[in-house]
Parts: sequence; structure tokens; C-alpha cells
Amino acid sequence: MALLLLWFPANILTISEGTWEAGIIKQIHLLRPRSGARGDSIPGLSCLSWRLAVETNNIIGWKTVPEECEEYVGHYMLGKQYRKDSRAVAKEAFLYAQSLKLAGDGKDIWIFYIDETTLSNFPYYYAQHGFGAEPYNATLFDEWVMEGAAPALPESLLLYNKLLSLGIKVVFLTGRQESQRNTTASNLKNVGYHTWDKLILKEPSKYSGKTAVFYKSNERKMLEKKGYRIIGNIGDQWSDLLGTNTGNRTFKLPDPMYYIS
Amino acid sequence: MALLLLWFPANILTISEGTWEAGIIKQIHLLRPRSGARGDSIPGLSCLSWRLAVETNNIIGWKTVPEECEEYVGHYMLGKQYRKDSRAVAKEAFLYAQSLKLAGDGKDIWIFYIDETTLSNFPYYYAQHGFGAEPYNATLFDEWVMEGAAPALPESLLLYNKLLSLGIKVVFLTGRQESQRNTTASNLKNVGYHTWDKLILKEPSKYSGKTAVFYKSNERKMLEKKGYRIIGNIGDQWSDLLGTNTGNRTFKLPDPMYYIS
Repeated sequence: MALLLLWFPANILTISEGTWEAGIIKQIHLLRPRSGARGDSIPGLSCLSWRLAVETNNIIGWKTVPEECEEYVGHYMLGKQYRKDSRAVAKEAFLYAQSLKLAGDGKDIWIFYIDETTLSNFPYYYAQHGFGAEPYNATLFDEWVMEGAAPALPESLLLYNKLLSLGIKVVFLTGRQESQRNTTASNLKNVGYHTWDKLILKEPSKYSGKTAVFYKSNERKMLEKKGYRIIGNIGDQWSDLLGTNTGNRTFKLPDPMYYIS
Repeated sequence: MALLLLWFPANILTISEGTWEAGIIKQIHLLRPRSGARGDSIPGLSCLSWRLAVETNNIIGWKTVPEECEEYVGHYMLGKQYRKDSRAVAKEAFLYAQSLKLAGDGKDIWIFYIDETTLSNFPYYYAQHGFGAEPYNATLFDEWVMEGAAPALPESLLLYNKLLSLGIKVVFLTGRQESQRNTTASNLKNVGYHTWDKLILKEPSKYSGKTAVFYKSNERKMLEKKGYRIIGNIGDQWSDLLGTNTGNRTFKLPDPMYYIS
């Protein structure tokens, strides 16, 4: 089960300058103008265009990263650009939050999703999943989640702390299941997300066969019925940001590794 | 009024390999990993991240391209990547359209917006507008529109022809005003958009002070009331694709030059 591999990659997000292969240091260039990671052209596919089309919700319903983009996505995720792209989103979200006049009644909430928004599963995707190019394996992914070892996404953690300092309450909403509550809560706390108003996990019996859009819309609707005002909504999937009750403004973090409808 | 400059750039979209400056051929590299077009780092800003944040609707309400990204946006638009990014969207739109079972009653429509979706104003933005870095000048832009010389966006024209061949009807919906109908219609025809079911232009008296989201949602709603089914909806602005009555599926073409709310 390659558990050894799963131990060290928690540090990967801090290693962004180069990678080793066959004993030779390869400089990582994040954005090659062609589809192959080493600049070789692959007819009909630009991995940059693929990634942009994914991030803009043009390409939907995909199961795995195209094989020819595996190295490209790896370089993107390992390198600086993923961090920079995340920082641009977090910064914009903070500028927006800062511009608001809050009611100060504790009902202004910001929704964070968890996987690839708050916590990073990159160590798993790196070790087990070919950066999203291998088919998803629910058993292996659940094992990884239950280790509770996912690192924080640094830009999201910074945003989280800044929002709290503005007096905004945080609600975590996740497709993770109720049975994963304790592990998820301690994982969040261990990496710096020390407080929240609500941590909403999925009750499988209630949402069996439903899409993420349905589940998340419904949970947001119930929050609004309780009098909360969703002033911000940040996620890595469009299924976090579309549907109903999406809040006053939404923010899309990058995620070229997987798609959830 | 630099009309001479406005004559030749209609060909620009076909010149994508290099550009001249001070007598030296500069190779255009589309995607530098840093913010300056020549790879020099500008603290706090990655133009790649800025563009991604714009395309994903994270950065909204902006008036001009950041000055330090003018060259970057110019390289992007002049080079191959803009075309490749557009092609990825058009291709995905066609694959989707092809997968549909159409009713065959002539009520299945596809909505195209016009500027930067169907027709390119790049010659104007190139000559007059610093690729979007200069403030918008409505008078100059209207002069350019009234020349009726905007080239087709090649990928959109291809998609248009393929959709027609599937039996889908096309509706053009635009923020251009009724007074620009004849020029717009002949511009469309001259560059290859030879037929359409409707060409909807804005009646200023009806939509004075309203956002594009409101205007476009309302016009789409009226189409649906008339029994049309919007099976696809393609635009370069999120204000084309958000709001109500957005259709069965939306497609976002790239546009890093301007923002319309």
C-alpha cells in the first residue's frame, strides 16, 4: 500500500525548485508552451489549454487527467505556479472581504470546502495517483484521508486567518463523510485551522446518489434558513460554486487533478 | 484617429510567430513564468495568475489590464496560445453538441455573443488600447465598430459552421446597440457568418442603467418564453454565462482584454 511513500510527501509543497529523476536535477519549468512536459508537441492537445478549459468549467465530467498531461500537471502542482495562482485567488478574496461592512452579529459566514481548498491531498495524488492521471481508487483515497496527515494549503490558511481577524465566521462544508469527522477535525486543527462555527460532513443516507452540487446547495440553503449570510464561498470545484445559495461572491481555487460533479 | 493603423491589423490574427521592435525580430514566447513579458519578475504580481483569476471570475470589476501585464497580454493574444485556448473550448462545445439528441423542430438554439466571441476587436485593442491596458474610450470603440471590419474568431466560425451542420439554429445576442444593426449584420456576413435565426441588439431605452447580466438574462428568458431551447451558450464574459436562463451548458472563451459586468 506504499505507506512509506505516503509519509514523506507531506513536505512536498515546500519543495518547489527542482525534482530528481535518474540522478539528474531537472529544473521545473511550470508552463511549457506545448503539451508534453519537456516541450514536445502532442498533436491536438495543449495541456495549458486543457487546464484553462478545466478551470473555466468548459471541460466537465472528466475522470482522469489526460495521460499526455500527467507530467505537465505534476510540474504545475510541484512548482511555483500553483502556489501563485492560489495566492492570487486568496488575495482577491481577502480584498473583497475587507471591503465589506459586516453586521457584527456573528451571522456573516465564509464557506470553505476541504479537499484541495483547505487541505491538500497532493501527497496522495503524487504517490498514488499520477497527479490525477490514474483512475480514482476510493479505498486508497479513504486510507489516505484516515491518516489525517493532509497538509494545509498555505494560501487558504492565510486567508482563513485573515477572515477570522475581520470577525467573519468560518463554515467548513465537505463531501467527506460523517464517519470521517474526528480524523478530519483533528487534521484541520493540527495544520492550523483551529476554530470554526460548523464542520458539515456528508450523511450518506441523506444524499445517496445525489451530486455534490445538490448536496452542497442544500446544506448552504439550510444555513441561510438558520439566518446565516454567506458572504463568501471558496472552493476548488465548480460544483462548490454553482447551484443555489452560492453566497454573495464565489472564488475558484485551481485544481487540475480531479473533477467532481 | 489613426485610421491607417486600423486598416492593417485585420490580418494580425494570422501573424503569430514574431513581432518587430526597434528593428530586431523578437520571438514571442507566450507564457513566461513571471509577470514581465521578458521574464523579469514583478513583485506581487504573476500575470499568468492574474489571467487565470480573470478567466475563472475571481477577479471581477476591473477597468484595465494591469500595466505590468500589457506586454504579457499582447504576447498571449498575438501568439498561438489564445488560438489554442479558443480551439479547446470550441472543440469541447462541438463534442457536446454532437452528443445531443435534437428535437428537429427548429427550436434548439445556440447563443453566440459577438465581441470577442464571434468577431474579434483585437485590431482595435492592438492599435488603440494597449491590449486592454489603456482606459476604454467609447467614442473610439464605436468608430471601430462602425467600420464593420472586425475579423471572425476562426475557432468560433468553425464551431458556428459545425453547429449549423448539426441542424442547430444560431442566435446572436450582443451588447451592441440597435443603431449598429446594419453594420454588425454586414460585418458578420462578410467574415462568414452567413445566416442566423435572430440577431438581438440592445435597445438602450429598455436597458438604460442595467447590467449586461440583466440584459442578457432577460433576452434569453424571452427566447425561452417563445419556445426556444437554449442548448448551448458561448461567450467571452462571465456576464454572458451567469444570471438566469443560461441554457443547458455554457462555454467560456478567453478574454484577458476587458471586463463587462
